[in-house]
Parts: sequence; C-alpha cells; structure tokens
Amino acid sequence: MANDSFVEQIADIEKDFPQWYTDVVLKTKLVDYGPVKGTMVIRPYGYAIWENIQAELDSRFKATGHKNAYFPLLIPMSFFTKEAEHVEGFAPEVAVVTHAGGEELAEPLAIRPTSETVIGSMYSKWLQSYRDLPIKINQWCNVMRWEKTTRPFLRTSEFLWQEGHTAHATAEEAEAETMQMLAIYKEFAENVLAIPVITGRKTEKEKFAGAVATYGMEAMMKDGKSLQAGTSHFLGQNFAKAFEIKFLDKDGSQKYAYTSSWGVSTRLIGALIMAHGDQRGLVLPPKVAPTQVVIVPIAAKKGGVVEVCEKLKEKLEKMSVRVEFDNTDSSPGWKFNEWEMKGVPLRIEIGPRDIENGKAMIFRRDTCAKDSYDLEDIEKTVLKLLESVQKDMLESARARRDGRIVYANSMAEILKGVEGGNFVKAGWCGCRECEDKVKAETAASARVYAEGETAEKCAVCGKKAEHVIIFARAY
Amino acid sequence: MANDSFVEQIADIEKDFPQWYTDVVLKTKLVDYGPVKGTMVIRPYGYAIWENIQAELDSRFKATGHKNAYFPLLIPMSFFTKEAEHVEGFAPEVAVVTHAGGEELAEPLAIRPTSETVIGSMYSKWLQSYRDLPIKINQWCNVMRWEKTTRPFLRTSEFLWQEGHTAHATAEEAEAETMQMLAIYKEFAENVLAIPVITGRKTEKEKFAGAVATYGMEAMMKDGKSLQAGTSHFLGQNFAKAFEIKFLDKDGSQKYAYTSSWGVSTRLIGALIMAHGDQRGLVLPPKVAPTQVVIVPIAAKKGGVVEVCEKLKEKLEKMSVRVEFDNTDSSPGWKFNEWEMKGVPLRIEIGPRDIENGKAMIFRRDTCAKDSYDLEDIEKTVLKLLESVQKDMLESARARRDGRIVYANSMAEILKGVEGGNFVKAGWCGCRECEDKVKAETAASARVYAEGETAEKCAVCGKKAEHVIIFARAY
Repeated sequence: MANDSFVEQIADIEKDFPQWYTDVVLKTKLVDYGPVKGTMVIRPYGYAIWENIQAELDSRFKATGHKNAYFPLLIPMSFFTKEAEHVEGFAPEVAVVTHAGGEELAEPLAIRPTSETVIGSMYSKWLQSYRDLPIKINQWCNVMRWEKTTRPFLRTSEFLWQEGHTAHATAEEAEAETMQMLAIYKEFAENVLAIPVITGRKTEKEKFAGAVATYGMEAMMKDGKSLQAGTSHFLGQNFAKAFEIKFLDKDGSQKYAYTSSWGVSTRLIGALIMAHGDQRGLVLPPKVAPTQVVIVPIAAKKGGVVEVCEKLKEKLEKMSVRVEFDNTDSSPGWKFNEWEMKGVPLRIEIGPRDIENGKAMIFRRDTCAKDSYDLEDIEKTVLKLLESVQKDMLESARARRDGRIVYANSMAEILKGVEGGNFVKAGWCGCRECEDKVKAETAASARVYAEGETAEKCAVCGKKAEHVIIFARAY
Repeated sequence: MANDSFVEQIADIEKDFPQWYTDVVLKTKLVDYGPVKGTMVIRPYGYAIWENIQAELDSRFKATGHKNAYFPLLIPMSFFTKEAEHVEGFAPEVAVVTHAGGEELAEPLAIRPTSETVIGSMYSKWLQSYRDLPIKINQWCNVMRWEKTTRPFLRTSEFLWQEGHTAHATAEEAEAETMQMLAIYKEFAENVLAIPVITGRKTEKEKFAGAVATYGMEAMMKDGKSLQAGTSHFLGQNFAKAFEIKFLDKDGSQKYAYTSSWGVSTRLIGALIMAHGDQRGLVLPPKVAPTQVVIVPIAAKKGGVVEVCEKLKEKLEKMSVRVEFDNTDSSPGWKFNEWEMKGVPLRIEIGPRDIENGKAMIFRRDTCAKDSYDLEDIEKTVLKLLESVQKDMLESARARRDGRIVYANSMAEILKGVEGGNFVKAGWCGCRECEDKVKAETAASARVYAEGETAEKCAVCGKKAEHVIIFARAY
C-alpha cells in the first residue's frame, strides 16, 4: 500500500519514542536544526502554531490587566550576583558577550536566560509610591540557556517564550497573582492545547532559582514521562531586596515590594506533539492547528469537483475556519498521508459520486474515523466536528493520563511505576535526601506536590509523610 | 495657568528639537534607558504602538503570501565573511559571544545584526527544485548593531524589527517582490502612520551591504531632517552564491536563486513622534494610538456624570474603539495636559451642564480644536472624527513636507536648502566624489533617487546630470 511506504519514514512510536519525535518534528517541517549546535529554526508550520498559542495566551493576559513591554536582551553579569540563589542557578548556563563594536567590553554581558534581574532594575527606577502598584508587565521574547544535550522545542540553547513580571504592595497580592497565572495556564493547556495538566507546588530542589515558591504544571506525554509545561513563581521580596524595588506606602514608610514571575515557552509545541501524536504523525487540536480543515478532491479532473471544493473553501473561510484546498497533482492517497502526518484535524473528501449523492466524506484525525455527511450545510457539520475534536482530544488525553497514575509505598514500587511509564504518587517525609535517592535510583524527579492528598509514611525512608509527591521521569 | 507649568517640562520644539524629542519619549513613558549603555526598554505605552504596527503590517505580509518563522539569534562569525560587502558593512557593529556554558567557544558567534546569512544557509538546505520556489518568509525579532551614539527608537544597540527574506527562480520575480514590499511599506506609512513618504532607489554608497539595489522610503521629520523608515533590497544572486542557494530548474540544470530582503523596525515609533508631535507632546494617528479616545468627566461627583461616561465607554468599546475613562482624582486641567501629551486623538468632556443640554465637548488632538456635539449618537460622531483625524494628519504632514522640498543648482543652494530644513532635489553626475562632497560640506546625504525627474547639470561638478537626487540631513 502507498500508505505504508510513507508511514515507514517515521520511527515506531512504541519502540523508539525519541526517534519518532525527531522524525515527526523534522518531516512535518515544524522545525530544523540551526547552524550553531543546540539552536533551532522554527519553520513556518511550527511558527504558525506558536502564533496561535501567543494569540490565545496574550488575550488572557490582557483580560487580567497585564500589558506587554520589551526589556533588553543583554544583562550586566554583575546583576546575576545580586540574588544569591539566582546566580547559582543560571550562571553556568549563560552565554556571554565579551566584545562588541570591535572592542572588548569593560563588563561582560549575559544574554538573558530569564529577565528578573534586568526587569527588577527597571521596576526599582519606576516604582515610587503605593499608587504605582501593582505593576503587571509581560514580554514575548527569546531567551538563551546553554545546554549540553538539546532537542528541538524541548531543550535548545535559544527558545521563545513569554515572561510575566509583576510587583505588588503585599505578599498576599503577589501570591494571588502567582496562583491566578497558574490557573490561566491550566485553563489554556486544557481548553486550547487539549492537554490535561496537574498543577501544584514544586519542592525546594525543583523550584526556580531565587523564588520563595514555584508552582508548575505537568503534562503526561505518550511515553508516560512528564513535561513541565509552565511555571509561576512567588518571588517574595528576594528580587525586591536585591534590586531595591521599594515604594512609599500609605503609612509614610518605605517598603520592599513583593514580586512574581511566570512563563511558558515554545516547549508547549513539544508538549502538543508528544501528548497527542501517533504513528501517522502529528494530531493537532483545532484551536492551534495552522490548518484546521483540508479539502482533498477525488478525481479532480471530473466536471464540477474543483468548483464544489472551491465554493466550500470560501464558505469555511467566511466562518473563520483555517482551510486549505489541496488541488496539487499528487494522488489522493499521497495527500491523505501528508495531511495526516501534519495533524490537520479534519479532511473533507469530495468526488464526482459524492456530489451526485449530495454527500462528502469527512475524516477526523484524532480518531481516524471517516464518515459520510450531507454536502448541503456541511460547513455547519465542520464547525460541530471541530468542537468535538477539540473536546474529545482533551478527554481522551485525560483518560490516558488518569489510567497511568499509580500509588507507591516503597522505592521498589516507585521504580516499577515509573518504569511502567506512570506518574507515581508517593508519601514523602520532606527531606532532600529521600528526594535525591528517588532521583538516583529511579531517574524520576519530584514533579509537584499532590495538593490535598495525604499519606502515612515516606515511601523512601518510612518516616512520617509530610506530603504526597508526584514522581515521574521528565523532559 | 496649570497648563503652562506642565508644558514647561518639555523643551521648546522650535529651539531644541533633540531635547524636545528626548523629553517627549521619556515623559510619555514610551521608552526608558536600559542598564547597558545604548539599550532601551520599550515601556507598555510604546510597546502598544509597536503591537498595532505589527498587526497592520503582519496582515499585509500574510495577504501577499508570506509566512512567519523564527531563525537563530546567534550566527557563526565565519558566515559574515562569505559575502564580501556584507562583512565589511556589518562586522564593525557586531556584538560577539565568546563564552557560553562556562566555556570558551571554538568559534565566536555574532548576535544577528540582520539575518541574510543564517537564513541563506537554511534556504540552501531547504531548496531543492523549482517547485519549492518562491520561498517567502518573514520574521519578527530583535537585532543588535553596536552604535557609538544612541537615541531611543532611532539608534540603539538592540532594536525590534521584521525582516522578510524571499528566494525566487528569476531576477524579475525577485525584483517584483522587492518593489511590491516597498509599495506595501509606503501604503502602510501613509494610511496607518499618516506619514507621507518618498520611495526610491538608494545610491551605491547608501545601499545595504551585499545588495544589488536598495530601495528606501524617506519621511520628513518636523525639523526638516529625513528618517529612513524602511528598506527593500534586491539581492540578486549575491547571497545565493555565498550560501549555495541553488535549485534544479525545469530544464534540468542547477541554478542559483535570486533573493530579496526587506525590513522596518521600532524606528517607526521615532518617526511617528517626530513627524506629528508638537509642543504639547505626542500626536498619534488613530490607527496606531494605544488609546484612541479618552473620556474626561467634568465635576464627576455631580449626579449622573460618571454613569453617562461609563455608558459611553461601553458603547465605544463595543464598536472596537480603544477608549479610556479617566475617573481618577486629578483635576480636569491636569488630565487634559496628560492625555494631550500622550497624543490621544480624541478627548470627550462630559459635565452636568453638558448632560442637561444633551451635549458633549470633543477635543481633537491633531488640530487642538474643541467643539460641542450631540450626546445622542455621539459614538457615530466619534467614528467619523477618528476617520477625519487619520486622513487630516496625513494631508497636513504632506502639505508640511511638500512646502519644504526645494531645488538646488549648486553646492551653495544645497547647503542653503538643508540648513533651512528642506529636502533638496539636485542634479547629480552619478560619481561618488560629488556625493561625498555634498556630505562633507553640508552634512546631507543622498536619500533616494527622485524617480522620473531629470536635471541638466550636476549641482556639484557641473557635468552632465545622470539623476536627480534628494539630499537631506538624516536620522
């Protein structure tokens, strides 16, 4: 079969998930390797997904009172040393500019790995009185973290992201902001990306360098590993004290502000691929799919087929559906494979016999089911199906994930759980030694606290459990 | 008067235009200086203008078949040397990363000053056959050019821009693309920014390093100087040969592609300020103004005023007008100054007596005229006025500019012309010596060829004129 020769190009998803991932991202032209090791080029098909992600998130940020701005790429190296934990966390990964304009610089400059420091220095300048608070700014930009091992979208030296940075008069307000943004990320992940996520606080070991508390959202990939899909940090007064972010309060005294920061990145595209993809390639949820519907003519040279397809395309475009009419010379079978690999949610097939019968076939990429529908008013069917695909993809991913959450009472059970490709919930005494031991013996890390759950004993040392932790191997 | 004390904060636009510019950009919170010399922070009010510019341009790019993508920030230094003119033009301005991840790099990496080289290397990889052509990609990103003297928006080490890069099978197609994008820039500058521009070819001296031909658009600022507001380059096969951008043509032979590139940047915000601003501050055209209408209540505590204002705000929002209701504690006079300085196109004043009479005052920022209008259906009046402001600002800028274009037949006349704050049209023999002489003696540079115009003699050497050039001092 023609299908087979095509599908063979993608490695077996069950047998070699990492190679399957690489094959899919390259063959669908989402991304390519840049000339410098560890860099990626986000190609038009991948960037179109990012644009859809941006539009959805940006409207949510603005609806909650945030404004966009742009801060400099280059940060004086001395800024990093002002917050002790921060420099320890980021200095080893920084790319450094030492020469510019033909001269050696007096002070080396870091390419931002994240912007708490440079933004903190500006907030310190802008903030005078309690009346200036809260400050709620977001920026969309590139950041750089020099990594040893890299994979497109998941871990590259440069990536694109948004980073929100806010300053508040009280700890309560900054904490409320931190939790609000975490909730927005979760709602977005589930309703837009169709990826169910578990949100919760991170352990001291896993938190952001310089934060008081980090909250993450964890998504399960098809291999059972976890992908940290977004984080929201309550920074307390750590950066406020390091950068003198102070204000004159109502009571006439100078106070340090409380700050938060939160971000998601082009990693989300990696999450989309690994949460939904299958042996045929990508499976994209309609809300972020660059093309939501492709129309493939069958026996296009027969009278009327092209006209019917073009008319349908126009109708769908008027309803703001992102639609392509593939009227190229390739065979229908070749086109089916191509658009399936690209993850287009719906394919409409229209041939002379369909037109005679007033019918058209619609193929759903998520279920790979194909059905016949009335050609009249088919645009309404398309809208309904797009909604169904969006919802069903979330529910299907949720069922898949929920079936892979297990409980463990011992290190052996943790190991068995993660080796079986599960999220493992286990009691934890709260000490770093036990957390390190899990990592060393199972390659799983503490993803987040399982909020609201309790256990009697630490699965590692058997002492009293203070928390339940979700352990998983992670990207 | 309260007005006066406020206005005093901005330097006299007639006496000290550079200081006026600095005062306006800082006091309206468009921008601030970053911690590293030569860098800028684009603050929310400035960035909102950039977002409006992006949306307008992006839809034009997409409507003409371009897709967005993202290429790496870091470029191997060796790439620059592959195109001889290109390296000469950009190497002196490059910022260089020598260390990353705690180690010295084997090859130093340049932060992109422009991306012809790195994009060329990718096109070389992607392009196989004539069927893959044309490639039409744009990217929105940051770039870096290390400059000695810097001014916010006009010249900073880092700035934001878009750069389009296309590859074509023939020179004709690449030239057509170059001219199409120039035309799109002109239409955008005039209809969106309300800035009349002169487009035309640049001289060899002024062209982009590595281009066969550069076309620019030049806008007149209120001091009579020119600002290059955008450029479009026909690159011939220069980069195709340097980066092996080749394809198998229909005739079975390998051919080099022809490429183009084109860009505009956050400089456009500087152009907006200097083309339209006045002693009170910014004057923004409605299409890019972050706030198009501000409603200021008069005697807000009197019954009904706030309600009427809020209702009007809602109505305008439903009509997609970007509107603010300024119900803060400041006096109306203070608010008038503040919003005038910020350049908001329309101000609606509503007080108890206005409501009694079924009227409201509307102040137009561009003309500073204030009139009374019926409160009923005032939203329709607002839409009409916004349209008028947009059109009138262009016509007023055009009249101002057209009154400042003069002809010169000698070096003395060129000097007199540019010292009077004019664009000066003069015959030119075409030799570099005469062009350099104008620059040395008048500080004016050749902006663009005056397309379609002819002159008898070169204003500098008196030899036969080959072209008419527009000379001006420039930003």
